[in-house]
Amino acid sequence: MDDRRRVMTDGGVLIEGSRIAKVGKLSEVKDWPEAEFELDADGMVILPGLIDTHVHLAQALLRGCADDTSLIEWLQKFVWPLQGNFEGEDGKVSAELCMLEMIKSGTTTFLESLLHSRYGFDGIAESVQRAGMRGILSKTVMGLPGYGNQSSIMHPGMVEDPETCLREVESHFKKWDGRADGRIRVWYGARSLGGCTPELYRRIGEGARRLGTGVTMHLGEVQEDLRYVQREFRKLPGEFVDEVGLLDSRVVFAHGVWLTEKEWHILAKKAASVAHCPSSNMKLASGIAPVVEMARSGVNVGLGCDGGPSNNCYDMIREMKAASLLQKARLLDPLVADAESVVEMATINGAKALGMQNEIGSIEVGKKADLILVAMKKPHLIPVFNPVSHLVYAAEGSDVDTVIIDGKIVMRNRIVKTLDEHTVLDNATDRGARLLKRTGIAIQPKWNLL
Amino acid sequence: MDDRRRVMTDGGVLIEGSRIAKVGKLSEVKDWPEAEFELDADGMVILPGLIDTHVHLAQALLRGCADDTSLIEWLQKFVWPLQGNFEGEDGKVSAELCMLEMIKSGTTTFLESLLHSRYGFDGIAESVQRAGMRGILSKTVMGLPGYGNQSSIMHPGMVEDPETCLREVESHFKKWDGRADGRIRVWYGARSLGGCTPELYRRIGEGARRLGTGVTMHLGEVQEDLRYVQREFRKLPGEFVDEVGLLDSRVVFAHGVWLTEKEWHILAKKAASVAHCPSSNMKLASGIAPVVEMARSGVNVGLGCDGGPSNNCYDMIREMKAASLLQKARLLDPLVADAESVVEMATINGAKALGMQNEIGSIEVGKKADLILVAMKKPHLIPVFNPVSHLVYAAEGSDVDTVIIDGKIVMRNRIVKTLDEHTVLDNATDRGARLLKRTGIAIQPKWNLL
Repeated sequence: MDDRRRVMTDGGVLIEGSRIAKVGKLSEVKDWPEAEFELDADGMVILPGLIDTHVHLAQALLRGCADDTSLIEWLQKFVWPLQGNFEGEDGKVSAELCMLEMIKSGTTTFLESLLHSRYGFDGIAESVQRAGMRGILSKTVMGLPGYGNQSSIMHPGMVEDPETCLREVESHFKKWDGRADGRIRVWYGARSLGGCTPELYRRIGEGARRLGTGVTMHLGEVQEDLRYVQREFRKLPGEFVDEVGLLDSRVVFAHGVWLTEKEWHILAKKAASVAHCPSSNMKLASGIAPVVEMARSGVNVGLGCDGGPSNNCYDMIREMKAASLLQKARLLDPLVADAESVVEMATINGAKALGMQNEIGSIEVGKKADLILVAMKKPHLIPVFNPVSHLVYAAEGSDVDTVIIDGKIVMRNRIVKTLDEHTVLDNATDRGARLLKRTGIAIQPKWNLL
Repeated sequence: MDDRRRVMTDGGVLIEGSRIAKVGKLSEVKDWPEAEFELDADGMVILPGLIDTHVHLAQALLRGCADDTSLIEWLQKFVWPLQGNFEGEDGKVSAELCMLEMIKSGTTTFLESLLHSRYGFDGIAESVQRAGMRGILSKTVMGLPGYGNQSSIMHPGMVEDPETCLREVESHFKKWDGRADGRIRVWYGARSLGGCTPELYRRIGEGARRLGTGVTMHLGEVQEDLRYVQREFRKLPGEFVDEVGLLDSRVVFAHGVWLTEKEWHILAKKAASVAHCPSSNMKLASGIAPVVEMARSGVNVGLGCDGGPSNNCYDMIREMKAASLLQKARLLDPLVADAESVVEMATINGAKALGMQNEIGSIEVGKKADLILVAMKKPHLIPVFNPVSHLVYAAEGSDVDTVIIDGKIVMRNRIVKTLDEHTVLDNATDRGARLLKRTGIAIQPKWNLL
């Protein structure tokens, strides 16, 4: 898939350093005189690395900890108390578990939403560097405790001071933005409506413009978001974020379930993007985002897996299927959200959302060599008439065989080269158990245990 | 998971011949004096084999051949012309591809819906025997060409004569029902509303009662079903099938999307089951079946993957997630279709639908040893707080490590013992390509091909 949405059969890609040097028929690319080595992709699809535009790295450790429960219980009884009790390397181990899963299912770039200082920014950034992924890390900025509809109910371990938050974003930015050969970026992570004062949102937007960086924020995930802003400010959420100047920066809004047509046009005009999270929206019963109409209105829509207690996995290949099927079911129209448009959501639209469309998101000479190879010779992927269809409707994350990021082989034959899988899994198992023990939260099936 | 819905930690299962002889703590089961050998299930979940209550074996070869298209085009331009051109071993190869995929994703029992004589019943039944699966094969019975709303638009290669159909069901039943140590059963596959005369449905019901077998039929998949029966018979679909006597036999209705409350009560009273196919219903934009309310009304609801052009895979683990998430999204209620109830749909409810609840569907002493082992030590399944949650919300088919059916090891360490994977994949690739060539149907991405 190149920038002109062309699919090549019997193709090959030549990589030089971190970038794509040639794309063509295998015969043109194979046996290139100066090539150091070849990767055999026989029977595989070469695809641009997938881009997850809404991830919570620190929620991987909470996988399956809050199912079949209302959002308010989900936050107050499970997610916040657990995350508010993170200590030591919990955040780093969770991030490594998450990245391991993302790599193994073909994600090469992600936008992390809302890193609390408790998770340990430096440790997580070091892990991104080591994992070899391309990651945007957004540091949470939130208002004073007691402000709005969120902070007042928040677990004390999750409360942060706004001035400290703003200072920390700047210091993380100075230390990490552009590091790891440019793979790491630092953004602002604005807490959702009710979590910051209008003035604080303004300062976030100003900070982002001053640093030349972006902002990500949950917007219109739940109906309460809409009700809150209408009650407090007599505005729609999309109007409110515009008024406080957030749309004058690069911004990615997660979810956007309850945004209205009027707001789509505002977002489209200001080139703001939406990270659509179909599995999470379904599992938490937040609603169904009208992304087909949103995209028709000109909003750039990317795809996101969200987190371990809301999805409960970080698999963009399975997320593509969820995205397509959900829109067809909502509109009772099998023609919408077709395979091609969903692959675009997971690749080039994601790149656009992050402002990286000239660097990643398609297979094009001069772009970064972020590529994945998906093995198709499997019972659930045979016969192959249309590989784009199979990627969306039949494949699963574990069909990804090889992952190349920034020209480096991060996974080959499903063996991750940059992180030690056993160590990460053991650490996560251990830290997950200790976290539950520390918080006294019991998680088990509803069925009786013997 | 036993009949009382209990989950055992550190458990073990002793198998004697084809049946479960003991279930208990590992210490009680391990080193059993007469045990011939042990299978290590360390780090795995032992689960009853999954039961797919709505499968089209002969559609595996059509995987990805009809995406993002309306149902009428789906049938008339792709599925019927392709299946109407099946020849030689196409049906058998498709069935083997389908079973290979089902085994590799943990399905041990299936209800095949609508085998056309063109697919070669004997060849398919022989493959089921060899694959080691437990399968109910339903032979299509359809009305005279030109009758109703279906036959008139059907591809000539798909038309069958009703008398021949009825005779064939009986002869297949005599030859195959109870064969392969009881693993193979033969049912009637009644074509959906408009595909048979009321009299033919009556004869199907009578035949099923005389042979002591069951009937499966698509019911209320699309709104047109409802409109047709209301127009022609001034009845609801559920009333119509009751009046023609189909509910006096064991019957599994696929889909049931457009059935109403009145019909749920009729179905519940007559102990008819519904095979819910969430992915297929979403992909074809048929609608969203209200299975939560249906189940509350007393209808037994199983789960089904449907087919290669409608899902496009046969993976009951991924289907469980689709089932749960879709209901939560439809009702905007995260509490409905919880993990436990969805695991029941995929196991014991499926067994009830097939009238086999005393033989399969849970791990219970005396039941058939149809068991799967799901490996949990994977990046997307760690940490494990609640294995039931992980099976529904995080796992995918390829996490199934071992499959035991009727006490025999059908897959171990993802190697299928009964079918040769490479041969099946090569045959399917070859036959799929020849089928497309023969029909002149081109299937390719919408993007330009280079």
